[in-house]
Amino acid sequence: MIHVALLGFGVVGSGTAEVLTQNKSIIEKKIGQEINIKYILDLREFPDSPFADRIVHDFNTIANDPEVSVVAEMMGGSHPAYDFTVACLKAGKSVVTSNKEVVANFGTELLALARQHGVSYLFEASVGGGIPIIRPLREDLASNNVTAISGILNGTTNYILTKMDVEGASFAEVLKDAQQKGYAEANPAADVEGLDAARKIVILAAMAFGKRIDPNTILCEGITGITSADSELAKEMGYTIKLIGYTTKVDGKILAMVSPRLIPRDNPIYGVSYVNNGILVNADMVGQVMFYGPGAGKLPTASAVTGDLVDIMAHTPAGIISPVWTDAAPEEIADPEDYACRHLVVLNAPFEGGEQIAAQFTLHALRVIGDRFSFITDVMTEAEVKARIAAVGYPLVSRIRVL
Amino acid sequence: MIHVALLGFGVVGSGTAEVLTQNKSIIEKKIGQEINIKYILDLREFPDSPFADRIVHDFNTIANDPEVSVVAEMMGGSHPAYDFTVACLKAGKSVVTSNKEVVANFGTELLALARQHGVSYLFEASVGGGIPIIRPLREDLASNNVTAISGILNGTTNYILTKMDVEGASFAEVLKDAQQKGYAEANPAADVEGLDAARKIVILAAMAFGKRIDPNTILCEGITGITSADSELAKEMGYTIKLIGYTTKVDGKILAMVSPRLIPRDNPIYGVSYVNNGILVNADMVGQVMFYGPGAGKLPTASAVTGDLVDIMAHTPAGIISPVWTDAAPEEIADPEDYACRHLVVLNAPFEGGEQIAAQFTLHALRVIGDRFSFITDVMTEAEVKARIAAVGYPLVSRIRVL
Repeated sequence: MIHVALLGFGVVGSGTAEVLTQNKSIIEKKIGQEINIKYILDLREFPDSPFADRIVHDFNTIANDPEVSVVAEMMGGSHPAYDFTVACLKAGKSVVTSNKEVVANFGTELLALARQHGVSYLFEASVGGGIPIIRPLREDLASNNVTAISGILNGTTNYILTKMDVEGASFAEVLKDAQQKGYAEANPAADVEGLDAARKIVILAAMAFGKRIDPNTILCEGITGITSADSELAKEMGYTIKLIGYTTKVDGKILAMVSPRLIPRDNPIYGVSYVNNGILVNADMVGQVMFYGPGAGKLPTASAVTGDLVDIMAHTPAGIISPVWTDAAPEEIADPEDYACRHLVVLNAPFEGGEQIAAQFTLHALRVIGDRFSFITDVMTEAEVKARIAAVGYPLVSRIRVL
Repeated sequence: MIHVALLGFGVVGSGTAEVLTQNKSIIEKKIGQEINIKYILDLREFPDSPFADRIVHDFNTIANDPEVSVVAEMMGGSHPAYDFTVACLKAGKSVVTSNKEVVANFGTELLALARQHGVSYLFEASVGGGIPIIRPLREDLASNNVTAISGILNGTTNYILTKMDVEGASFAEVLKDAQQKGYAEANPAADVEGLDAARKIVILAAMAFGKRIDPNTILCEGITGITSADSELAKEMGYTIKLIGYTTKVDGKILAMVSPRLIPRDNPIYGVSYVNNGILVNADMVGQVMFYGPGAGKLPTASAVTGDLVDIMAHTPAGIISPVWTDAAPEEIADPEDYACRHLVVLNAPFEGGEQIAAQFTLHALRVIGDRFSFITDVMTEAEVKARIAAVGYPLVSRIRVL
């Protein structure tokens, strides 16, 4: 019998208990052993839960019980989740997690600690909810050099942007609706300002390139500045706006960034709508593959957590290839100013201003409506597009990168 | 150092040699050992290939060399591929394959043989080319009960149907174009008549339900009967026609079938076009996830083969969870007549015939043009829709199931 402890009995924690209970027989068939949820750590009591008798409030009960060999951490936040993870790994317990904050901030250290203690640290649920992405990157695509990953990694912002696109509504209106439906939190900052997506793209970049970048240092633009005019313009031009976590190499250095992007209609993630996530991986041998599905939610995320649990329980520790990360040195990280793509530029200029604009830019898909010049640029770096906009001299209304 | 043998030096075999050579350093970093392609079995000589000195013509050279611990079988066809696989597994060598015919026909026996000899038999490349699907089903979704899989599993037919949809061209015209471009074989029967997709859906059904069905016995309709009129009608109704491999349970029994289906616009595989494949998995915990990418081709397929090689080389045999299949007993297999879905029905009838038709069917999205009545039925079984069409008494022009 394998004894498991769950840290946290919130949405994902209770979902994981539900999956382990409801699908107990198919899981036990796969691992060839019985599973017992021995403890559930939470500050609260759950007198009406079928798991009421497993609830403990003292982490040391779990840490000091040698019978517990696997721990699922689903607490959220850096502390004490990180500290508990360290203690479990040091005590020779494998850990699986849905906590992107801990993985993005401390993944390098925790993976090394797991290796050192002959156990595993797995985090499929930290990116893309129920969508298989970490394991396929680690195993199925193991013989590829990844060249780029572009992901719709946050369901809340994708819901908002989809509603803005479909209904022409404003950001503020749609946010309110999303909050009422439970798709956005009362304090939506981590979602709409891009930090959640930043943590996830940092994890994907580390899986792709073996180097972890501090998520708090990457270029991170949210969607609070996207207007319904931007959304409508994008639609008229045949694009849709998505919040994209993007990673690639620029002159051998790693770029990771989060920003709104215009997605062309022939891109497979164009159709990824509402709360779904979609992750597009470009790699030298396979070409382009996409992973699509529910990027959040109780049971989908619990499906990923329990997939990792099964992986650990079915294998000897030596049976799992753990990724090896190192923290990226400053000289290994690309300057976002050097990253080149096309840009949608909207300038406020009188009709006569066209000449000045045309002197700086080749104007693709030009639209002049009233005093607004909207166009798509050639591929150029951040630094260059900013310099040219400054050289034109008219006020910038919007600039959105094209994927 | 790990010594590998490749069986077959055709498209996939030479691609695998290329991946193992070109990305040697990233692969060796992951497995912590050097890899050597010791032998390549082929009937031909390749005097100009950099691998010319590895080519052997006698399989026994490989079978009898204890240094070779892993074999990649990429010969195609049942024999001698099956026989060589048996010999390798019995000699204690793990085998990976891209050969869907062997996996679909003999997978149960080969998986059991691998288990018996403490080695692995992996076949990620047998379905969906470079798309990760077998391993995600086996591991990431291990704690789910799969409820249905619907897949665009054949790039040739998807290319043809996409061109028919986009250009309104006829099947014959597009087939000729596909043959000229190398997307369809000179003898396209296995693709256009659905047998290739049948083998793949049988493999997916076995992954989902643990039971292998003989691919030659399942309901299998190809696309040779799809006319440009069907394609245009589907488009006008907001659908697109795709050849779908489908598996689910009907009253606890396993259904696997291949047929053209109408795909509604909000289905994630609606946009899977040209030679791409897309596989939609419905499961009780995760909900719905999709895997998308190149379903064939030299390097994508080789990416999947080498992913399996890395998996085997990085793990001890005990480190890999092999699926356990049994051959489905007749009473475990659903009768396709009992499978219920909506159907597009096109009948040849005079305008006055409408009353008779309406007596048998609720007419969704009815279109009457000249003497053609086109409509979508309620959800009903094969048996029922056939009986009602017979009761109407007018000639059937087309019937296509809706996904």
